[in-house]
Amino acid sequence: MISVVIVGTGNVAQNLFQAFEKVTDVEIKQVIGRNENHLSFVKNKAPINTDFNKIPAADIYILAVSDDSIGLVAEKFKDCKGILVHTSGATSLDILSTYDRTGIFYPLQTFTKGKIISFKDIPICLEAKNLKDLELLQKLGETLSNTVIKVSSEQRKVLHIAAVFVNNFTNYMYTIGEEICTENNVDFKLLKPLIKETAAKLDDLTPYESQTGPAKRADQKTLHNHLQLIKNTHHRELYTLLSNAIKHKHGKEL
Amino acid sequence: MISVVIVGTGNVAQNLFQAFEKVTDVEIKQVIGRNENHLSFVKNKAPINTDFNKIPAADIYILAVSDDSIGLVAEKFKDCKGILVHTSGATSLDILSTYDRTGIFYPLQTFTKGKIISFKDIPICLEAKNLKDLELLQKLGETLSNTVIKVSSEQRKVLHIAAVFVNNFTNYMYTIGEEICTENNVDFKLLKPLIKETAAKLDDLTPYESQTGPAKRADQKTLHNHLQLIKNTHHRELYTLLSNAIKHKHGKEL
Repeated sequence: MISVVIVGTGNVAQNLFQAFEKVTDVEIKQVIGRNENHLSFVKNKAPINTDFNKIPAADIYILAVSDDSIGLVAEKFKDCKGILVHTSGATSLDILSTYDRTGIFYPLQTFTKGKIISFKDIPICLEAKNLKDLELLQKLGETLSNTVIKVSSEQRKVLHIAAVFVNNFTNYMYTIGEEICTENNVDFKLLKPLIKETAAKLDDLTPYESQTGPAKRADQKTLHNHLQLIKNTHHRELYTLLSNAIKHKHGKEL
Repeated sequence: MISVVIVGTGNVAQNLFQAFEKVTDVEIKQVIGRNENHLSFVKNKAPINTDFNKIPAADIYILAVSDDSIGLVAEKFKDCKGILVHTSGATSLDILSTYDRTGIFYPLQTFTKGKIISFKDIPICLEAKNLKDLELLQKLGETLSNTVIKVSSEQRKVLHIAAVFVNNFTNYMYTIGEEICTENNVDFKLLKPLIKETAAKLDDLTPYESQTGPAKRADQKTLHNHLQLIKNTHHRELYTLLSNAIKHKHGKEL
């Protein structure tokens, strides 16, 4: 049995809570948050606590709080004996450097308010100051996911940057797609099967192999026609920039 | 029974062939391509033909050829009585204007060589010169898909531009994500669950609501750290441009 304390009330904390709550080999000793109202997701399924002076003993303390708060919140755990981990992709292990037993427990996924998703396929990226602690984190990770791996702070930061491109920036492309539809009274919903297949293609092909479209074909006529039709200046600039980048990438290497 | 002739040997032609081949209410009279070798996907399941002088009678002729070829290929059908349609998102119905019975049969999806996908969820966008022909195209579409809709040439072009953003440009974001991983010896595969969830989120949220990440939070520290770590100039420029766009969009409207 591994005992954990979860600290935080945001999307990561809520998803971790819901996931660990179903695991018989994990005991959730407590969920800690400053605001009792924000702890309502726990629903009597585990003890809750708003007082950092009343932290119970546990094997692992999971700080699922915003990047800016990690350092401050960590200070509250100076007398605790368990492993102190944070869940941030962008924050180094060094932020916990005043402690002996520290680590990272970074689930590489986008978590949405109110949407609970399965951890089975989510890679959990681990790091730990001590090898023995890494082993316990590995055990904890494996109660949730089939992909639990050791990743250095440098590699984790790289993954986080790549995640910004494939998640944040991709979602921004969806946003523009929706804006273009809405401006022209076309239903954005029609694009959803295309969006899902674009992601699903990566099961079989590399992104380079998956590339299609007028820019890849250097189809100047369609590129020109599209630019004539796009009214929004920002959309037009992005269309030109990204089309040129794709043309360049595929033109040079073909 | 609706009889069709499919013209073309590319991804759209192959996917349409495989789909119609399974429909009992559709008879594939012939698949036409210039090069017999490229027709091998038909595998004796329908008559094939490389000679445009031997086109059989059919209810609908589907030109699933490249945008640039539609006009030239259409000329071969001047003596045919059926409806002549093309499958292009970017090409106007006018390209077939010398014919009486013309239309569009545009499946809004990305088709990949060798990968056969189900048409059930693919929106099929229709247009026709005559109402009666539109009805037959509607019937044909409904043998494949649950979403068959009438879309004007203008709306179809808008959908095609939006598709470039959500498919072509999104795939380019995946490409950069992979480049960043490869340059730093991190396995791109780890990002695939994130990529799929990014697309799946749209079942519940608008793209605007789905937006997360350092740019949306205006988290200057992470944005700065990321820019320090990105070595490739092109990646850095895109990171800055797209982060500023997201900051602007969410900053102004919050």
